[in-house]
Amino acid sequence: MPAALADLLRSARVHDLEQPRFVGMPIFPTHRPGYFYALYRRHRDTWQPERHGPRSGASGVLTMMEHAGTHIDALCHQACNLKLHGEVPADQIETPAGFTRLGVEHVPPLLARGVLLDVAGWKGVPRLPPCSSISADDLDGCAAWAGMEVRAGDVLLVRTGYGALWHDEAAYLDAAGVGKSGTLWAAERGVVAVGADNMSWDAPDERDPETGATLFAHVYLLPKKGIYIMENLNLEEVGRVRCYDFAFIGIPLKFTGATGSPFRPLALA
Amino acid sequence: MPAALADLLRSARVHDLEQPRFVGMPIFPTHRPGYFYALYRRHRDTWQPERHGPRSGASGVLTMMEHAGTHIDALCHQACNLKLHGEVPADQIETPAGFTRLGVEHVPPLLARGVLLDVAGWKGVPRLPPCSSISADDLDGCAAWAGMEVRAGDVLLVRTGYGALWHDEAAYLDAAGVGKSGTLWAAERGVVAVGADNMSWDAPDERDPETGATLFAHVYLLPKKGIYIMENLNLEEVGRVRCYDFAFIGIPLKFTGATGSPFRPLALA
Amino acid sequence: MPAALADLLRSARVHDLEQPRFVGMPIFPTHRPGYFYALYRRHRDTWQPERHGPRSGASGVLTMMEHAGTHIDALCHQACNLKLHGEVPADQIETPAGFTRLGVEHVPPLLARGVLLDVAGWKGVPRLPPCSSISADDLDGCAAWAGMEVRAGDVLLVRTGYGALWHDEAAYLDAAGVGKSGTLWAAERGVVAVGADNMSWDAPDERDPETGATLFAHVYLLPKKGIYIMENLNLEEVGRVRCYDFAFIGIPLKFTGATGSPFRPLALA
Amino acid sequence: MPAALADLLRSARVHDLEQPRFVGMPIFPTHRPGYFYALYRRHRDTWQPERHGPRSGASGVLTMMEHAGTHIDALCHQACNLKLHGEVPADQIETPAGFTRLGVEHVPPLLARGVLLDVAGWKGVPRLPPCSSISADDLDGCAAWAGMEVRAGDVLLVRTGYGALWHDEAAYLDAAGVGKSGTLWAAERGVVAVGADNMSWDAPDERDPETGATLFAHVYLLPKKGIYIMENLNLEEVGRVRCYDFAFIGIPLKFTGATGSPFRPLALA
Repeated sequence: MPAALADLLRSARVHDLEQPRFVGMPIFPTHRPGYFYALYRRHRDTWQPERHGPRSGASGVLTMMEHAGTHIDALCHQACNLKLHGEVPADQIETPAGFTRLGVEHVPPLLARGVLLDVAGWKGVPRLPPCSSISADDLDGCAAWAGMEVRAGDVLLVRTGYGALWHDEAAYLDAAGVGKSGTLWAAERGVVAVGADNMSWDAPDERDPETGATLFAHVYLLPKKGIYIMENLNLEEVGRVRCYDFAFIGIPLKFTGATGSPFRPLALA
Repeated sequence: MPAALADLLRSARVHDLEQPRFVGMPIFPTHRPGYFYALYRRHRDTWQPERHGPRSGASGVLTMMEHAGTHIDALCHQACNLKLHGEVPADQIETPAGFTRLGVEHVPPLLARGVLLDVAGWKGVPRLPPCSSISADDLDGCAAWAGMEVRAGDVLLVRTGYGALWHDEAAYLDAAGVGKSGTLWAAERGVVAVGADNMSWDAPDERDPETGATLFAHVYLLPKKGIYIMENLNLEEVGRVRCYDFAFIGIPLKFTGATGSPFRPLALA
Repeated sequence: MPAALADLLRSARVHDLEQPRFVGMPIFPTHRPGYFYALYRRHRDTWQPERHGPRSGASGVLTMMEHAGTHIDALCHQACNLKLHGEVPADQIETPAGFTRLGVEHVPPLLARGVLLDVAGWKGVPRLPPCSSISADDLDGCAAWAGMEVRAGDVLLVRTGYGALWHDEAAYLDAAGVGKSGTLWAAERGVVAVGADNMSWDAPDERDPETGATLFAHVYLLPKKGIYIMENLNLEEVGRVRCYDFAFIGIPLKFTGATGSPFRPLALA
Repeated sequence: MPAALADLLRSARVHDLEQPRFVGMPIFPTHRPGYFYALYRRHRDTWQPERHGPRSGASGVLTMMEHAGTHIDALCHQACNLKLHGEVPADQIETPAGFTRLGVEHVPPLLARGVLLDVAGWKGVPRLPPCSSISADDLDGCAAWAGMEVRAGDVLLVRTGYGALWHDEAAYLDAAGVGKSGTLWAAERGVVAVGADNMSWDAPDERDPETGATLFAHVYLLPKKGIYIMENLNLEEVGRVRCYDFAFIGIPLKFTGATGSPFRPLALA
């Protein structure tokens, strides 16, 4: 089987869902300064042919928030009334070096069927109206239009079209997102993870009428359902080629105790 | 085909080749301080039920060198007489923000057949002698013992056994590595990437008798052959279960201009 | 004498010339992200009364550019045609860890007579027009108005009034500054350092008509004259109380090889 | 008076009490990685004579703990049973961005009489035995030997001799320190700050027999008495020239909310 799998991987069409990482990319205000890279060791610095032969090396240093750029949230990232997933009190597992449980090192590699619901494509617009909210009806409608069924174990991606604005922070931060009914729709289908081409999956201005919570998915999917949230995906290419059904690969790094991880998810078709 | 691929991915046995990331993990002295994570926003800080409902979030900040932990080297990382891959002069593409060409954002996701040559296993030892060197003959012998053939397009992993010492920096830094003849052996087979369970693939004390270069693979595979090098892999599990032939998935992040990227490679069998 | 000096120090009126340091303070775009502080170790984390008694500690981590906030430039910070002060070629003393000569660790503590030329005060405005330029005639006129003489060995401070806008980055970055003739005026008087309540001492939009250089003082005072430049001073209080003549204390930190240092200068009257 | 003060400052003999800051300097294990500086923008990068004239600039980035190198502790740094100075509950003023009260921005510039008690010099040894403890009797004896009286409002510096080992982290971390009785002796005299040439002022292995607390001064001087602690001073020169009585200048930076600040204290004689 490894041979068959390797052959399929090699011959698959690979769609890269990661946005490029650079200083100045959009960042949620909470997570500023977000991302910084400095190249400080250069080749000429280490080139000493008489001592080391012709070889030289260059390298740099990264400073970044784990929620900068395309990333996945760990279960410890969000709490509901200070309880994390499994009703674990947040206080009990917080340390200066990170969470002693539910950190991103416990998120398994996501290897699953992926489904794209291209809501912007369905509506025939380059992107949905700023700060607008995607409902369960929208997801139903889009799935029917595309002939797609979302099933248990799937990874669900929703396209708003704002991924095309990755170089324009102000416009990007006003992206559309998924509303409460849309999030419930996803959870009911038993997906293992959801993701969108915006900063937070959630519709930015919406509040749960029951609890007043902002970012409903964050307080529901992570602490209550154990469903991961992926943010800042680039869904432009999969949208353009109408790749709605694919093998999804998303592999977070094991930053011990951290609340999320940058990663580079792929859609293979 | 996506369905078949997704099914195979879901049912595969997944071996995680990434070492855990934590403050104090082994780091090449050149790349100190290496890795640091601080959790600074805690749930209670953001919990304001009257304003935001029951939701709260936690997050931290990472400072790290791109060559810390399990990672892959970009082509710009190493030069031969100040020429990078394709004979590009290093000086011409170095900037404070990274390399304008050959940066890690240009490394494609590695989706390939993977082969493990477990040299320590072949020799029947938990790990090879400290600082010892693996030759072409060793790789030949190990491949014959395992009944493995390394082919063009493969990813070649070599196990020294030092991955088991990830929690002991001093011992880990004295790992065995691959000597010049072993590196040439790999390059002749046309692999796309090599990796080992040590800090640098190369045998640490060896010098190329022709040029005096330390770390022969670094001055040969990257600038001359365009073959990627992966370091600090955890090959203990694949060695133990004798998983020598597998589908390899290794997906670096697109840190624009950076000389490498931490990643979490997988062996699927 | 130490007793007399200590007595004078204790009884002096102390004017603090440092702007507060906080995330979001104004930063020259070149030096973004500028300043970040995260408190990550909190008292409860380390409070283990049964093991350590009643004591606990808290601490954080700083990431910052050496040119963030109130600071002084080292001689290595600026070059003229790639020559540093003393005609040292920049390339010869640059390393990944900083400059091997002319770094900020060689800047002595500045203990001198200080003179404030409050140009905004002289003109009777809260602040000079945005991006306007202070000339030699302005400095002459202001000095005559205040009855001040600038002498060799003095530290010269020039007030534009923009220090009051430290909480408004956009407005602050449009501050007035000192033009070429004003810089030459200062240098002719043999001052050891100059400083202003703006991002760069220099008038931001001016170019030297002879060479086309932006930031004339940076290419003249540091590489040619060895006169230090101090930036982002808070001169509001000394302006308000008309403290024009004072003992100046400015003590940079010895960051080995760095191109500048944040510091907290004082005016004692 | 400013003129007299400026004259005295200019003519004083200046002893620099700051240790140099460099990657690899000693750091308390709690505060690792401690200190990192990377020069990443170099002169050639910004030298564009046709666009900017002959000027170019270089700069870097610092990552550091506020307790790295020569520094002063803010009152919020230490608590006694989770109460800070003034019985303020630590929890109430901790935020991700630092303390809302008692942060280092509230520490005034220290301008005072300084007294050095050179305990190592008094005992005629280059340094006191490793991890040994300096008692009230020692301070009394040393003060009598030197003919010094410590008075209210003074800054008290105690020399162990370990400042000479700043380049040897292992040896430095085993420095002698001041025991409980010595700390009480200092507090009784009403000093405003104490400092020593070691990592923590306190004797490293001593515990308060009453409470079991490690680092007695940290739980007593800061939370109970409001007396600042200064660490990693370089007292070698003042010891060598027997400068026991001087004007002390120590000016922390105003990092808003931080628990301490690196600084460069001076002794003027």
